[in-house]
Amino acid sequence: MKVGIPKGTRDFSSETVAKRNYIFNIIKHSFENFGFQPIETPSFENSSTLMGKYGEEGDRLIFKILNSGDYFKDVRKKVFDQGEITHIFYNTFNVLERLIENGAEIESVEEEIIDIVENYKGIKSATQKVLLKVFSDNKARISEYFKEYNDKGEFPTEFNKSQTFKINFLNEVLKEYLIEIKVLDSKSSTSLISEKALRYDLTVPFARYVVQHQNDITFPFKRYQIQPVWRADRPQKGRFREFYQCDADVVGSKSLLQEVEFVQLYDTVFSKLGLNGTTIKINNRKILSGIAEVIGASDKLIDFTVALDKLDKIGKEGVVKEMLAKGISEEAIKKVDPLFNFSGSNQDKLNALKEMLSASEEGLQGVEDLRTVVNMIEEIGLSSASLELDVTLARGLNYYTGAIYEVAAPEDVKMGSIGGGGRYDDLTGIFGLKDVSGVGISFGLDRIYLVMEELGLFETVQLPKPKVLFLNFNEEENLLKIKAIKSLRENNIKSELYPDTAVSNKQQKKQWKYVTNRAIEFVVTDVDNGAFVLKNMNNGEQTTCSLNELINKVQ
Amino acid sequence: MKVGIPKGTRDFSSETVAKRNYIFNIIKHSFENFGFQPIETPSFENSSTLMGKYGEEGDRLIFKILNSGDYFKDVRKKVFDQGEITHIFYNTFNVLERLIENGAEIESVEEEIIDIVENYKGIKSATQKVLLKVFSDNKARISEYFKEYNDKGEFPTEFNKSQTFKINFLNEVLKEYLIEIKVLDSKSSTSLISEKALRYDLTVPFARYVVQHQNDITFPFKRYQIQPVWRADRPQKGRFREFYQCDADVVGSKSLLQEVEFVQLYDTVFSKLGLNGTTIKINNRKILSGIAEVIGASDKLIDFTVALDKLDKIGKEGVVKEMLAKGISEEAIKKVDPLFNFSGSNQDKLNALKEMLSASEEGLQGVEDLRTVVNMIEEIGLSSASLELDVTLARGLNYYTGAIYEVAAPEDVKMGSIGGGGRYDDLTGIFGLKDVSGVGISFGLDRIYLVMEELGLFETVQLPKPKVLFLNFNEEENLLKIKAIKSLRENNIKSELYPDTAVSNKQQKKQWKYVTNRAIEFVVTDVDNGAFVLKNMNNGEQTTCSLNELINKVQ
Repeated sequence: MKVGIPKGTRDFSSETVAKRNYIFNIIKHSFENFGFQPIETPSFENSSTLMGKYGEEGDRLIFKILNSGDYFKDVRKKVFDQGEITHIFYNTFNVLERLIENGAEIESVEEEIIDIVENYKGIKSATQKVLLKVFSDNKARISEYFKEYNDKGEFPTEFNKSQTFKINFLNEVLKEYLIEIKVLDSKSSTSLISEKALRYDLTVPFARYVVQHQNDITFPFKRYQIQPVWRADRPQKGRFREFYQCDADVVGSKSLLQEVEFVQLYDTVFSKLGLNGTTIKINNRKILSGIAEVIGASDKLIDFTVALDKLDKIGKEGVVKEMLAKGISEEAIKKVDPLFNFSGSNQDKLNALKEMLSASEEGLQGVEDLRTVVNMIEEIGLSSASLELDVTLARGLNYYTGAIYEVAAPEDVKMGSIGGGGRYDDLTGIFGLKDVSGVGISFGLDRIYLVMEELGLFETVQLPKPKVLFLNFNEEENLLKIKAIKSLRENNIKSELYPDTAVSNKQQKKQWKYVTNRAIEFVVTDVDNGAFVLKNMNNGEQTTCSLNELINKVQ
Repeated sequence: MKVGIPKGTRDFSSETVAKRNYIFNIIKHSFENFGFQPIETPSFENSSTLMGKYGEEGDRLIFKILNSGDYFKDVRKKVFDQGEITHIFYNTFNVLERLIENGAEIESVEEEIIDIVENYKGIKSATQKVLLKVFSDNKARISEYFKEYNDKGEFPTEFNKSQTFKINFLNEVLKEYLIEIKVLDSKSSTSLISEKALRYDLTVPFARYVVQHQNDITFPFKRYQIQPVWRADRPQKGRFREFYQCDADVVGSKSLLQEVEFVQLYDTVFSKLGLNGTTIKINNRKILSGIAEVIGASDKLIDFTVALDKLDKIGKEGVVKEMLAKGISEEAIKKVDPLFNFSGSNQDKLNALKEMLSASEEGLQGVEDLRTVVNMIEEIGLSSASLELDVTLARGLNYYTGAIYEVAAPEDVKMGSIGGGGRYDDLTGIFGLKDVSGVGISFGLDRIYLVMEELGLFETVQLPKPKVLFLNFNEEENLLKIKAIKSLRENNIKSELYPDTAVSNKQQKKQWKYVTNRAIEFVVTDVDNGAFVLKNMNNGEQTTCSLNELINKVQ
């Protein structure tokens, strides 16, 4: 039997788990340090909770869970109901045969068929529609068939050409019918066989949680959630079908102090991870709206930011050319000219934006919001990250209503964003609770892991292995060894006894190999008159010591 | 829109998460202390990995995941292929009509129909089988129909009795056909639309992991795994459709020292949790096999242990009566008579077993194995648990080959087992890697949680909330407060600023309510000339202090 795991999923070895937990623990500790509370939601939600929240593409990528028991019941009921169309097909086909036999032309027959099907009383509209379609689509085939028509009215006892034709034709009719009634359609029929789905992100379940438990929650509610999510995406490097999200959100407060706090939170986590030199990019939806107002077309905003983002690579001339090609007028481009020289400090940028967006009330509000955050962060200071105003930042444009964040890894590492977030004014509206503003950020665990691996930042992570191994060459000593191990463990020193007693040279070598493979630091090789022979594998030093001395030496 | 979660699943509030993590962390720490290494496997596995490993009932309880994309494609292909049977049905029915019209009796017609269908060349066997069945099953109906037969050969333009009959009849034919070819059958068709499933336990994925990564693993491999599993079980009190398992297993060693270590591990975890007075019950499959040998029928073993388990309640007489009723002979019962007075120490029990099983080599081996474990544990000592030999312990009888464990909660708590495990000699055999012995134990998180809740053992658990809250009544002080909070956090003191500045009495009250609802210990109410006005909410004491004093006071 071939063993393996589904594509896009991963097994994690002990070493990888230890490194991942190192990141998780720092994030968790910082979340709690900042006053965020953990919650957990189920891995699967009712489909109605998730479907329709992520756009059509998102719906497609949600993993659906088959109902338990006889999940096909409702589909069967629909599929089995094919008698009517089959019957009328046969009757109609018989009329057709009779007419052709009597010398009619296919063209004149067609009208009669349409007449019959259209005027059939009590017929289902799907039946009618499909029969008309199939007869009309297959005129050429039917005509061809009747040219070779040779059925003598005798009942045949094997498949002849005429029968095969009818069978194929009927198959097509039934197929069209099932498509028409949308059963066995992977889009429309899913709800017949599946009513649960694996969560796609943590935001929608969180919104559902807030609405469901609103009476038990003290607002503003600062929650964090670190759990896996699942997406039926095409797997590729760094993109998986099961991965963790680490989200912190606040709901129930519109205060900009939250925006400030999230910048501090990013800085704190990345500093603690030793990931120095990250850039926290910040923008505000209101500024983007202001730009849209100024360039005179909100539908051109994406084209505009995408083009502007290429300034580094293709220069002002290239960007302007692209904008013109996308239908943004020369006059509009002139109005936002300062964006092409947008290289100063955050304060410089804010001043330029203020002037540029003077005609847009919303744009100016965005400038003021950002200025509050930028000023506060300048006062407070950051440990290792830098805050950078980036007007090309437009992620989740349809979603965010205020601040937009994205974190870039240190410059010398090639990697997409390692975090992102923003403010959304109506998080819980989809579940009927209006006017609850939320703002939150997310950490991209898998990418952070890759960046840390590349920068060698896992060196200090303690791998899950025993510090001391007691070799097992002499069964009689085992009780003494087990008692010693008990004491070591009580002193929080990970230790173990090799379980099988070696009765040959080969088996002794196997135990030494275990020491090497697991890179164990200390080995108790022997017990000598109640004292332990301890070998330090780093320097080869060997000493004989009492239990207390042993504990001290390996601690 | 009504919000909710699927039955059998749970949302966990911050308080519950904190309590659960308290248990998880103690288990995790003890696992690592004992030298176990964490691994993680994907939430879903290939269906072929899971199906057929848990018996028929288990297969039914596995949550299956719908394939992505056009998952109905293969089903459709089969369903659409109904032309043949429909066609032959119509032709056969026509023959039937003609014969009846010509005065034939239904009985004589039947033979002709059978003859036609049986001798039809090139017909699919499923088509043949279904047509014969349906015509034969519906003789009475057909007969009834022809009594009222009045079709004049004219093409009808609305449904008459005759047509409705044919339609219903054809529906039945198609239904029987689809059942026969096993498409749209919730059992047989699952593999057409689903190739992945949520894991049902951690043992089978672990076996798969060991086989898949055998070349990277240093044996003996001590792994632990703490992850959720999913079962489509009927939800009830304490039984959920998503729940965590906490497993520690060793593979690749047959040494009984592992059995000893697992007893110590149970004792360590439950002692650290403060859950004193647990009973670690132990048995050995070999002893059960010995008993089977002695009573002369291995198929009676379950009946035997079930009856014996009632000794406390129904007395020796009742137990013997039940055993006799189950077909165990009086002579056999006499041979295992010591089991009815099985109340002494573990050593007493071992001695009695040795005598009783003297005729069974396997039984005696079981006694020796248990004696080794019992003796070692007596020498080493346990902190808070007691080890009890229990010959009625037979969980997973078809699975375990050596030691069998089960842990009972302290006597004053009514609760099923809170842990269990055992040795299985061929864990990885199902995936083609032979002769790898494994032994492991599991902790029942949800039940442990309930027991601890009942015994009030969560009192020391630190809930996830800030230690200090800074009220926000005056916007101008915020920068100073944020800087102070930064220092507090750097000193690992959870603290936060209420985000919205109160501009009314009502809003001030809201902030105080937040303090009360979250039971926050320290509140900074005001800033006075750069000093902080601190209120201790436990005793109402109010002091004005510098940042350093503040840090010291709340630490």
